[in-house]
Amino acid sequence: MILRDPVHGLVAFEGDYEAVLTRLLATAELQRLRSIRQLGMASLVFPGAEHSRFAHAIGTAYVMTRLLARLLECDDELTPSLRMTPQDCRDAVAAACLHDVGHGPLSHLFEDVLHHSTPHEEWTYRAILDPDADVHRALGLIDPGMPERVVNLLQGNHRLTYLARSISGTLDVDRCDYLLRDSHMTGARYGVYDLDWLIRSLKVVPMEQRAQQTQQGQHAVLGIEGRKGLPPIEGFFLSRHFMYEQVYQHKAIRAAECLVRGIFARLQELVQDGIALDPMPTSIRAMVLGEPVQRSDYFALDDHRFWSCVYEWERSGDAELSSLCGRLRGRVLPKTLPLPAQDDVTDHRLLCERVYERACDVAARNGFRPALHVWLDVASDIPFHEDKSSVDDTLWVVRKHRPLQPLGEVSFVLSQLRNKRVLTHRLIFPAELREQVLDAVDSLLVH
Amino acid sequence: MILRDPVHGLVAFEGDYEAVLTRLLATAELQRLRSIRQLGMASLVFPGAEHSRFAHAIGTAYVMTRLLARLLECDDELTPSLRMTPQDCRDAVAAACLHDVGHGPLSHLFEDVLHHSTPHEEWTYRAILDPDADVHRALGLIDPGMPERVVNLLQGNHRLTYLARSISGTLDVDRCDYLLRDSHMTGARYGVYDLDWLIRSLKVVPMEQRAQQTQQGQHAVLGIEGRKGLPPIEGFFLSRHFMYEQVYQHKAIRAAECLVRGIFARLQELVQDGIALDPMPTSIRAMVLGEPVQRSDYFALDDHRFWSCVYEWERSGDAELSSLCGRLRGRVLPKTLPLPAQDDVTDHRLLCERVYERACDVAARNGFRPALHVWLDVASDIPFHEDKSSVDDTLWVVRKHRPLQPLGEVSFVLSQLRNKRVLTHRLIFPAELREQVLDAVDSLLVH
Amino acid sequence: MILRDPVHGLVAFEGDYEAVLTRLLATAELQRLRSIRQLGMASLVFPGAEHSRFAHAIGTAYVMTRLLARLLECDDELTPSLRMTPQDCRDAVAAACLHDVGHGPLSHLFEDVLHHSTPHEEWTYRAILDPDADVHRALGLIDPGMPERVVNLLQGNHRLTYLARSISGTLDVDRCDYLLRDSHMTGARYGVYDLDWLIRSLKVVPMEQRAQQTQQGQHAVLGIEGRKGLPPIEGFFLSRHFMYEQVYQHKAIRAAECLVRGIFARLQELVQDGIALDPMPTSIRAMVLGEPVQRSDYFALDDHRFWSCVYEWERSGDAELSSLCGRLRGRVLPKTLPLPAQDDVTDHRLLCERVYERACDVAARNGFRPALHVWLDVASDIPFHEDKSSVDDTLWVVRKHRPLQPLGEVSFVLSQLRNKRVLTHRLIFPAELREQVLDAVDSLLVH
Amino acid sequence: MILRDPVHGLVAFEGDYEAVLTRLLATAELQRLRSIRQLGMASLVFPGAEHSRFAHAIGTAYVMTRLLARLLECDDELTPSLRMTPQDCRDAVAAACLHDVGHGPLSHLFEDVLHHSTPHEEWTYRAILDPDADVHRALGLIDPGMPERVVNLLQGNHRLTYLARSISGTLDVDRCDYLLRDSHMTGARYGVYDLDWLIRSLKVVPMEQRAQQTQQGQHAVLGIEGRKGLPPIEGFFLSRHFMYEQVYQHKAIRAAECLVRGIFARLQELVQDGIALDPMPTSIRAMVLGEPVQRSDYFALDDHRFWSCVYEWERSGDAELSSLCGRLRGRVLPKTLPLPAQDDVTDHRLLCERVYERACDVAARNGFRPALHVWLDVASDIPFHEDKSSVDDTLWVVRKHRPLQPLGEVSFVLSQLRNKRVLTHRLIFPAELREQVLDAVDSLLVH
Repeated sequence: MILRDPVHGLVAFEGDYEAVLTRLLATAELQRLRSIRQLGMASLVFPGAEHSRFAHAIGTAYVMTRLLARLLECDDELTPSLRMTPQDCRDAVAAACLHDVGHGPLSHLFEDVLHHSTPHEEWTYRAILDPDADVHRALGLIDPGMPERVVNLLQGNHRLTYLARSISGTLDVDRCDYLLRDSHMTGARYGVYDLDWLIRSLKVVPMEQRAQQTQQGQHAVLGIEGRKGLPPIEGFFLSRHFMYEQVYQHKAIRAAECLVRGIFARLQELVQDGIALDPMPTSIRAMVLGEPVQRSDYFALDDHRFWSCVYEWERSGDAELSSLCGRLRGRVLPKTLPLPAQDDVTDHRLLCERVYERACDVAARNGFRPALHVWLDVASDIPFHEDKSSVDDTLWVVRKHRPLQPLGEVSFVLSQLRNKRVLTHRLIFPAELREQVLDAVDSLLVH
Repeated sequence: MILRDPVHGLVAFEGDYEAVLTRLLATAELQRLRSIRQLGMASLVFPGAEHSRFAHAIGTAYVMTRLLARLLECDDELTPSLRMTPQDCRDAVAAACLHDVGHGPLSHLFEDVLHHSTPHEEWTYRAILDPDADVHRALGLIDPGMPERVVNLLQGNHRLTYLARSISGTLDVDRCDYLLRDSHMTGARYGVYDLDWLIRSLKVVPMEQRAQQTQQGQHAVLGIEGRKGLPPIEGFFLSRHFMYEQVYQHKAIRAAECLVRGIFARLQELVQDGIALDPMPTSIRAMVLGEPVQRSDYFALDDHRFWSCVYEWERSGDAELSSLCGRLRGRVLPKTLPLPAQDDVTDHRLLCERVYERACDVAARNGFRPALHVWLDVASDIPFHEDKSSVDDTLWVVRKHRPLQPLGEVSFVLSQLRNKRVLTHRLIFPAELREQVLDAVDSLLVH
Repeated sequence: MILRDPVHGLVAFEGDYEAVLTRLLATAELQRLRSIRQLGMASLVFPGAEHSRFAHAIGTAYVMTRLLARLLECDDELTPSLRMTPQDCRDAVAAACLHDVGHGPLSHLFEDVLHHSTPHEEWTYRAILDPDADVHRALGLIDPGMPERVVNLLQGNHRLTYLARSISGTLDVDRCDYLLRDSHMTGARYGVYDLDWLIRSLKVVPMEQRAQQTQQGQHAVLGIEGRKGLPPIEGFFLSRHFMYEQVYQHKAIRAAECLVRGIFARLQELVQDGIALDPMPTSIRAMVLGEPVQRSDYFALDDHRFWSCVYEWERSGDAELSSLCGRLRGRVLPKTLPLPAQDDVTDHRLLCERVYERACDVAARNGFRPALHVWLDVASDIPFHEDKSSVDDTLWVVRKHRPLQPLGEVSFVLSQLRNKRVLTHRLIFPAELREQVLDAVDSLLVH
Repeated sequence: MILRDPVHGLVAFEGDYEAVLTRLLATAELQRLRSIRQLGMASLVFPGAEHSRFAHAIGTAYVMTRLLARLLECDDELTPSLRMTPQDCRDAVAAACLHDVGHGPLSHLFEDVLHHSTPHEEWTYRAILDPDADVHRALGLIDPGMPERVVNLLQGNHRLTYLARSISGTLDVDRCDYLLRDSHMTGARYGVYDLDWLIRSLKVVPMEQRAQQTQQGQHAVLGIEGRKGLPPIEGFFLSRHFMYEQVYQHKAIRAAECLVRGIFARLQELVQDGIALDPMPTSIRAMVLGEPVQRSDYFALDDHRFWSCVYEWERSGDAELSSLCGRLRGRVLPKTLPLPAQDDVTDHRLLCERVYERACDVAARNGFRPALHVWLDVASDIPFHEDKSSVDDTLWVVRKHRPLQPLGEVSFVLSQLRNKRVLTHRLIFPAELREQVLDAVDSLLVH
């Protein structure tokens, strides 16, 4: 199977992998990902960011095949028990392809807007383990034990921790694909790093001298080859940071997300008050009531369904819901106001609370219900996290004639960034209130 | 206004253009284009091709601003009446942005599946001229005469024919953008040509020696500067040809389109038979009945609505409709069989008819209604068309010390391709019938 | 061995190939290629085109390793005698790396400026076969029979004709690299085609049904897989055509080359007249006298040596030589005048002769010796040559359920270009004479 | 004047700039830069890095024209005395084009290998001010005061400090071009940042509130627009850092440079001992003797001359010189050993000295003269330097409703890197001695 991809160019799956992916891509659950945009609201700000989770699923599986090909080259340096079997490889490619299959409409946003909602990972596991699901059947036809093994792998449980971490870890095939893809599609370009060189510099490293090598002294971790691997891995983490700053935490995207939060908050009120709405998908109704959701109902949701609902809700009798849906469809976004950082945590919390209260007052005075229209938004990220006491989560640098060292001790740039957190607080409120809100909070924001 | 775009990188609109585009992009009709994929079914074959008409509208307007900047540099060589005024420029950018606003769901496919449906251009004109439409109001606020002028320009009626042709002609800003964009998004890359160099080599050329210069002897056409412009313009037409061959007329995309044709054919039967379907959008109902469609109903349709309907129709009581919708959603595509070209036109028509008949017989014998499942598909294109008697439609090559010459007489490659037609006939039928159909038609297809 | 390359990105040589190339790249003859620019005079027009034959040698070897990897995948479809052995592969990579090792300074230009000079291919063979040459020793250390086998391969003599053609043929690794490289470095970009996809679509095809399969009925040729291979192979030939039109036959580059011709013509006169020049490399002296040249003397020449001589010759006592060298160093290029094509060959030859004569008269009247300053330049190329009677030189298109067909019968674009010749005649003369020459020849050039 | 460039694509100079650059590029001094490779020895490691200072001169001038166009857009916000005049712009483009005209062969390396040699900047000034130099005449013909003004600008003396800093400063057009160019040509790609977006985010900012605004309170500095400018400027400094780590301070390139140091050290000994060498360029002879060098002699040197000499010197009677030249031509590079960092400066110096001494002993015992063959190499860089007390050298971030802030206080990444130094010490010695040297110094290098 050969595909064209805007990010990777030629994407070819051969041998075992072709068989696995041909089956998986034909399933209803994977095909459904065509209808779920990878970046939720981002296309409101970056018009090109209209790509779906389907393309990302293929891309992630593809990066996995390339990583596997590379890691298999390290076999000579590993004891047999540390090597990947063909079954491991097949499972890993399936896991990579399926890792996002449980996403709801609007991707991450969907699980964020409702308290206590089931995370998408959980839906992924359920689908893979559900005998009624297409993906379960597809995996089972390849090998009856595969569904369970793939879920284990996705959950990080595998005798080869390096393989589990390559699917979900600091440096995993998911990130490898989405940084490039999101960067490419937004046109931001800041997420571009050198995937070829990065993969070529990775290897499996046995850690024989380590204490925890209890079981026959065997353990292996992901390592990066000497100086050659530093630039691409530094590029990878910097790309990630730039994408967070410039795209994932973009103020206008956060603002749009608050509109969706408002919509769901209003839906919850209406449903709880017993007010009928048409349409009202079964799964959304259950969710806002905190009731259990059927897997088939959940998987019936996608972006098409969501936006069709928004279209109808704009025409519904409820003025609040109608207004919020109209704003979202017409891209009438709220305004954002960044709140300055402060050294003292308590002071800062206090400041945020006061600012939020004053904005709520302004909103209320102008006929906007604060609970639906005013938000205190916190964006937080650690661009490079490293806890070297967690051996499996650390990236180890391999250099001739030298002991293994954690990446953060070898790279100059990453040593400066290690474990530092970037934190942004923003007030978000209706654009109509811009002047009034600024006036109200100005005295609190000493420059 | 500065935007990021995966194709053009930085897209900046300044001055007059910023004002016009800020207003237009905020209209409901433009925002709706976010929900209409540029390439209809193509993402079933090229997973990356998920971009919408919205990004293309911005891109087209952007190429227009760049073209205008270039053409304005030619003012010194033109008599005042041949020069573009600021109003002309503003109108042109608005026209470029709006040229596709009337597209229905699935873009071109939507108007192709129904006989006698109103073409998307017509819906574009209606929206711009409809006092109730957002775009009409937006243009009217800039200048009350603007809606009408923009429609005239889109229809090719303008005192400066070169300006009208640059919006819709052999070499227009629409093509300039979509070739690059579709190429980029499919990952096919064959549509990449050098836009920078192409624009830089274009100019407005007064044709003083010409007979038809009746009105004060004034006329001007689009010209290409000497040898420098040849490579990019050749690249442009070759790109176009490659995109037709590889993407727009790809066999699997054509096959998917036939599934949609089947769905609409069945819808028509059901509606005409008075069988109720839920959902059934007002506009689709009117269309399949051949009744007039309200503009507001038409513009309520988009891809989200279409796919939501397909989801429901798969669950409807009609087995035929359900089957077709299930195939489309599950990407169970029909098979295609290319029919060999023949020198004699009559022979060829006869061959196609016989092949089609035999395939219909096979289908019927297997319980497939031919009218919904068997298709004779004709893809046709002239990669480079040039009729030099049509002065305004011809691209003229400008070289120092030499008379103007039509492009097709100067370029070696294009001279070989000029006015030649590429024609592909294909039989399209359900995948289950592959062996039987091949057996049935084999004797007709002498190699 | 892993290298960075501006064209191919990561260039890795592994296993056998690493061993061969590490040795070859360390030889004096390969290292010398660092001092020979790939495109001779082209950097006078395209400032970026300063790349050397060394980078091209690496690139060509790299493309060969990729092609071999692809062709080896076809083994299952071939009888054992048609398969490549590891030795064949090693030889092929060495041949690819060494194919240009015999180039003189300024690449092709050097062998063109002197009548009866030994072509660079011949010098390549001599170096490989010369026991005193580093490359001979390096190959001999790998395998004593290797030098002779590599020369045979370069000369097209090999039991596997498809392997020989892939080193020197219509579609060979040399062209594959230089089109991309020259395109990249000139910034012209017109030579960019899709190498990945092209290689992936190539295969070795047994021709069992053919008459000439006399020896045990075994023969195989290079084939292109079905529709997938068409776009890249069409792109390849179009790229080649564009690079010829825009770069290799660029008028200003041809003009600069005529300056070099003038320098060598004057050198010949001076040497034949027994006039001493310092410096005067032994090999150049022998060449202009038509005497045999020692291999070591020839390989002592490179661009550094050539340009150092030009620097000194500009300061020599001979006014003619000094003037020509000064013009070359100062980039004072002659002018070019394209001569119109004519249908009648005899008429055209007559026209060229007359134009040339008149220009010579003008030159002579102005104190320029025509033999050193006036040139009739003919640039000729067949963008796509195909003679299907030559089975090994034809590219065969492979499609399921169909017989092999020559590329030119399957591709629409190439069918239009097949065997057509592009021919450009130019008059080249000193810039000072521009007006006078134009006046003199104007009456001959009826438009 | 329109040129093709591998880095910038289309490079167009228009109006005033075209006139200036057409003259300058035709001068002997600029044409000479075609023969001086930008990156000295780097092509021995990155085969693609064969580009000359000539292409860089054009690129730098081009970036300057783009920067000027951007900065001129800020005129409305500036008092007239802070605005650039057409003369300022013309001078700036000339200065950008000429800034490297004084480089010797091998670029920076040439001035580094000889103690007390005249820096290339000084030769640049001399050429521009020398009435006998082509560049002086070319500038003088445009405007008699231009040579002096251009030199002043290059020296940082200009009433508009922001203009002077844009030619030589933290963020200048020189760096802007060479990072992209070197990155592109090496194939390293790490120096790629977003030039378009960077330029678009720069502006001239009046600093009215500042104390030093003595003369009528007028002063202006280079500023970066708000959040939009952060990613490209961060990318710029990170690119610079990566290029230093990966290319400019690459161990094998440093090793090759030591070979050249050895050659010049030996030349000095020979010349001082009165031993005749043929060839021996006048300027090199004077330099190694510490005598004054004529400008014309200096400018007669280029890479061609240098490599021609190395070729001859390899064949000279002096065994030391011959050996060193042979190693350089044959790419037989010395080995490098990184010396570990230590917190205590004195300890570290002591360590380096001891390691160096032991290596010298090993060399001497094996017949290598340490002075010619053993080197202690120190590579040092501050990736992001910022001293906000130096107002003109600081990059100021401009955000709406906020005071100007230094870049290092706004950017998260740069705040972590600010003023931190990367320092690498390496021992460099003949490859033959690898084992012996490692044995000798091993006990000193405690891990």
